[in-house]
Amino acid sequence: MTLRFTKMQGLGNDFIVLDGVRNPIALDAAQVQQLGDRHFGVGFDQLLLVEPAQQAGHDFRYRIFNSSGEEVEHCGNGARCFLKFVRDQGLTDKRELAVETARGVIYPKLEDNGEVTVDMGPPELHAAEVPFLAEHEAVIHPLQVGDEVFDITAVSMGNPHAVQVVDDVDTDLVQRVGPLIEKHARFPRKVNAGFMQIVSRDAIKLRVYERGAGETLACGTGACAAVVAGIQRGLLNGRVRVSTRGGDLTIAWAGGDAPVLMTGPAVTVFEGVINLPEA
Amino acid sequence: MTLRFTKMQGLGNDFIVLDGVRNPIALDAAQVQQLGDRHFGVGFDQLLLVEPAQQAGHDFRYRIFNSSGEEVEHCGNGARCFLKFVRDQGLTDKRELAVETARGVIYPKLEDNGEVTVDMGPPELHAAEVPFLAEHEAVIHPLQVGDEVFDITAVSMGNPHAVQVVDDVDTDLVQRVGPLIEKHARFPRKVNAGFMQIVSRDAIKLRVYERGAGETLACGTGACAAVVAGIQRGLLNGRVRVSTRGGDLTIAWAGGDAPVLMTGPAVTVFEGVINLPEA
Repeated sequence: MTLRFTKMQGLGNDFIVLDGVRNPIALDAAQVQQLGDRHFGVGFDQLLLVEPAQQAGHDFRYRIFNSSGEEVEHCGNGARCFLKFVRDQGLTDKRELAVETARGVIYPKLEDNGEVTVDMGPPELHAAEVPFLAEHEAVIHPLQVGDEVFDITAVSMGNPHAVQVVDDVDTDLVQRVGPLIEKHARFPRKVNAGFMQIVSRDAIKLRVYERGAGETLACGTGACAAVVAGIQRGLLNGRVRVSTRGGDLTIAWAGGDAPVLMTGPAVTVFEGVINLPEA
Repeated sequence: MTLRFTKMQGLGNDFIVLDGVRNPIALDAAQVQQLGDRHFGVGFDQLLLVEPAQQAGHDFRYRIFNSSGEEVEHCGNGARCFLKFVRDQGLTDKRELAVETARGVIYPKLEDNGEVTVDMGPPELHAAEVPFLAEHEAVIHPLQVGDEVFDITAVSMGNPHAVQVVDDVDTDLVQRVGPLIEKHARFPRKVNAGFMQIVSRDAIKLRVYERGAGETLACGTGACAAVVAGIQRGLLNGRVRVSTRGGDLTIAWAGGDAPVLMTGPAVTVFEGVINLPEA
């Protein structure tokens, strides 16, 4: 089977994107694994498959697979690349799309500067829903980690985050404390540990120790969670530039049940053609 | 600048290969680095650039760059891919080539089974040339590593190797002892630490902790050094199948000043096109 693909990235989170609209594509887990191997295949964090919408009024169906072949849920960095891909490939000329995902319909939107905004849904701040074991609801909870106590805000963006404010994000704290927070007993489903340095009321620097992955170049939901936590703490305005090691995102949140809007770049890296053994 | 490339691998050692014969290609270090980034570019262990030969009677010039942009020396896994590439691209129909490299002319040869044989040059067994600090020449030297002593054979294949025989290659020994041997004071230019399990007189299993790189899927010079060491110790015949975690190689050596011949696979993974900013 000859497969054409586009390699893309958003803040270093990298994808291969496949057009399953013009030609249906069915890949088994072994084929996805082969494609995902960075030495024996192409390599990616996620494979994005564009398919025709299943319901009238929607533009596309958007399926996401990780490199083990497992189908996974919504990825903000991937959704930006998805929109750029379908426009670049001439599959649509709309600037805002209704896209079916495993978690419901999302509406990615092309901005005038070429960046893409994705609705990341409302944050979940109730401890039980994060889930975070707490005796009462609060914006700030002291978290005992060994001999130290860190003041964290627990936020879910579909996945759990523990965000703390630090004076300087460029220290060994992320690597030293991140793994301990990730597996802390008060987070029964583990947690992404965010470390946020407040630059101004409109800008932060952020590093995230991701659940099951360690520190990554950029974590879209981590950026959302950090800005929500900073707004809740009264430290940030409603629209904030987030600098990560992979690049910059803009996060906007109007508070309450409003969705968190994430705006950032989507970049085409190269076009490729690969011959895969038949499944 | 639009660049066409072929992604290839030999035992998981992966390359992008560029045709600088039909169109001259000049890349600066920043462009090589961008191409070499596995998230923001294509990703590779080495970039192989095919150029016209500089001297009559030779077929091509073969230049090798690592992902930091530095031009480096002969790589056996790369040379196999080089030969497959120039034949697949129609740049030659010869089965054996005379190829100019930074270390002299090499003669890669296509075998009937599609594998490629590369002359890796003669091994260097004199301790001072490896370099290895020893009071006398010997096939086996006891090497004190902390509280333990390992019997190693010191071999250079253009780069230094310390090979030892182990009962079982699939233990934690490689990760535990490899880094200590790599930086051992008796190897003034550091060393690749090889761990070889003798399966029969014609077959070994091998793992290598590479100097500056840690354990890799497959190390071509490490396979050569291990077989030379095994032959010197009287444990192996002159032609040996070497199983690594990246796949199998066949190593042949007639002893003395004869060159070590390495035969193994070369695989095309995919074809790509990338737009690079001008230098």
